[in-house]
This record gives sequence, structure tokens and C-alpha cells, in this order.
Amino acid sequence: MKTLYGVGVGPGDPDLLTLKAIKVIRSADYVFVPRPKPDKQGMAEAIAAEYLQGKRVITLHFPMGPDNVDLYKRTAETLDRTLKDGESGAFITIGDPMTYSTFTYVMFEAQNLDMQCVLVPGISTCNATAAALQMPVTIKGESFYLADGSVDEEVLRRVQSVCVLKPRKQSAETLEKLEKYGFEYRYIKRCSFPDQEIWCDRRAIEEDRDYMSALFSRKRG
Amino acid sequence: MKTLYGVGVGPGDPDLLTLKAIKVIRSADYVFVPRPKPDKQGMAEAIAAEYLQGKRVITLHFPMGPDNVDLYKRTAETLDRTLKDGESGAFITIGDPMTYSTFTYVMFEAQNLDMQCVLVPGISTCNATAAALQMPVTIKGESFYLADGSVDEEVLRRVQSVCVLKPRKQSAETLEKLEKYGFEYRYIKRCSFPDQEIWCDRRAIEEDRDYMSALFSRKRG
Repeated sequence: MKTLYGVGVGPGDPDLLTLKAIKVIRSADYVFVPRPKPDKQGMAEAIAAEYLQGKRVITLHFPMGPDNVDLYKRTAETLDRTLKDGESGAFITIGDPMTYSTFTYVMFEAQNLDMQCVLVPGISTCNATAAALQMPVTIKGESFYLADGSVDEEVLRRVQSVCVLKPRKQSAETLEKLEKYGFEYRYIKRCSFPDQEIWCDRRAIEEDRDYMSALFSRKRG
Repeated sequence: MKTLYGVGVGPGDPDLLTLKAIKVIRSADYVFVPRPKPDKQGMAEAIAAEYLQGKRVITLHFPMGPDNVDLYKRTAETLDRTLKDGESGAFITIGDPMTYSTFTYVMFEAQNLDMQCVLVPGISTCNATAAALQMPVTIKGESFYLADGSVDEEVLRRVQSVCVLKPRKQSAETLEKLEKYGFEYRYIKRCSFPDQEIWCDRRAIEEDRDYMSALFSRKRG
């Protein structure tokens, strides 16, 4: 049996790694590191850099863009070819491996190849954002909606808080809906990184196209 | 200025603490520890036990039950009286401090007393549950709904995945709604603890009243 760990390394601050993530990276036979460009350090790689020293690191080319089933299949085949029976590999991924992560697709393909998958949850950008803004994700009796890109108006009517990851192209439309339903919002760029920024200005948010961004909002009480 | 840290210690497994949580606990002048019964170790306290050795620990009585504004106000006053100007206290809390946590209310009261609050996000039960079940919280283009107790049918119609924390008394009604909208569900008890259990049987789930439980579900593809 070959074991593939999906390891969430958190939103950006290396101190937001869990002890479990570090232990799994340290004990794995290989560490698999996704890179949007082959010769440029990836984000998960930068966050976990300290723990990659002395490890057998395999970089994997993951270009930005639409989902690519072939790529996930080929990636799983690479992982399967790399590991010998009884060996383990830690695939590191930013945030949480089950929340808007391409690792999810790789996991499904690896399971098709009979690899044993084990997940190590990570601090998601959504929780890090709520912490940075001191705005509750949820309090007792309330509910929360997490979306990427666009939001559903009917859901906005019925929940008290919302986080939209990568609002980019649809942000003008999203902000209009949030205002319509009485939400107060903040826009956060590069949450938990040293250059984190928090914006409130609607026009500025609408014009921004940063990939590492989130819109967090709560209904006015 | 007095600083109050709200420190999420994760869902149960001590290895799911972040480095940041450990650093803040270790460097704080005091650690504040909530207990449902005065003479019984609290859950956050058990999870972080290793890092409390040699610390000045102040236990706070937090009985289970409905929210209690007076209690949160009195707690904030206790924190304020304990800390001298320039000192810091780490209030530890299970999961994430902004997700269904009584710490949220304590934070608001502490802010009213001009204490500086800083939050350290923790792995939420929701992310740990998704990892244990290998069921995505969200993949690209999908959305997620987090609730406690009861769920809104109209939201279920419009999202792909749902986590209900503490489904207890309303679980029969919730399971009926989930089945109606084509969700596949799993019930998890004491996620990430050594005695974690995963159940699928509707009748058994309906009859269980465990406080440390979550219902996680995704629409069939």
C-alpha cells in the first residue's frame, strides 16, 4: 500500500501550520509540492519551506486556470510511480485540503489508483479572515455561507455571515447583493501574510483582481 | 493596554494545535481556561494540557446551557482585573474562536472594557470532519452552508455541502430535509479524538444526543 497525505499548510503565516502537518511532512518519504510555474516557488512550498530542508521534494506543475481532469490524473500517476509499496508522500497545499483546493481532485484520482489517502486539515483562509477582522464566522443560532466567485441572493437573505473567496471578476455584482441584504463587508488581501491588507472601499474592491483575496461580511445587527 | 488573545486549540487532537497557538500560550502572562464544571478539566484545557505546565492558569466557570450575557460581562471583568497594564492573557477555546464559540461574546465584552483583542484561528470541527470523512467542504464553483441545530430548506436547495454542528434535538428533522434534497450524510462523534466514531445509520443518528457531534453532507453528484 502507498499512502498519500493531503497536508493543509494554512493561509500563509508559517506559524499557522499545525504540529500534525509538520510531523507528517517530516516523516513522509517524499514531499510533493505544487507550482503554478515550474521554476518558481509555490505558495504552499514557501509557507512550509523550513520543513522541506533535507527532504526528497518532488515539484509538480499546476498551472493556474480552469480545472483540468487530465492534469489531476497525470499527477496521481506521477505520485503513484514515485512511491514504492509501503512508502508515503505528503502533498502540501495552501489553506485546508478539502476547501477549494485542487488537492481534492488529486485525491479522487489517487484513490482510483488504490493509494491510501489521509488528510491533515489546515486553517482555512475563511477562519483566518474572520480572526483578522474580529468578525464572527457564526454565533449560536446563526448560519454561514461560503462561496467562490458569485453568490446566491436567496441564500444571502437567509444567512447571517458570508465569505466569498476569490471574488474577483464578480465582485461588483457580489457587493451590490451584499448591500441589498444589509451586509457589512471587508475585503482582505493576502490574509495572514506580512503584507496583509484590509479594505472597505467599494470602488477599490471592485477594481482589484488579486487572486489571494476574500470578501467577508455579516448582516448588520 | 491589556491584551486578550482568543486562542483556538482545534477540534480535539493536540497535534491539531498551530505553532502560533503554542507560542501565544507559552508567552502569555496568564492562561484563561473555561470549565463547564469548576472542578472538572475543560476540553480546551485537556487539548492544550502540555503547554499549561508552569503557567499561571486561571479557570473560569462556563456552565453548559443558553447564552448568558451577564456571565460574559463578569468574565471580561475578571480578565480585566487579573491582567495588569501591559500584560497579556491567552483564553483557550476548542475549535476556532470565531466559529460557534462562546469566546466571541467574551471578546465583545472585553473590547467594551478597552482590552486589546487578538485572535488566533484554530482548526474548526467542520474542516476536521471533512478531512476525516474525505468529503470536500467545497470544490470550485460550489458553495457550503454551516449551521447549528436546525437548517433552512431553501438554502439546502441551493448549496452542495452542509455541516450541522450539534444537530442533537433537531436531527430527525434535519435528516429528513437532507434526504429530500438528495444529500448523502455522515454523522461524526468526537472528531479527531482517539474515540472518534463515524455513523451512517439514520435511526442511530436520530437517537444520539452527544454534544460533540457534527453532521456532514454533500449532494449526490
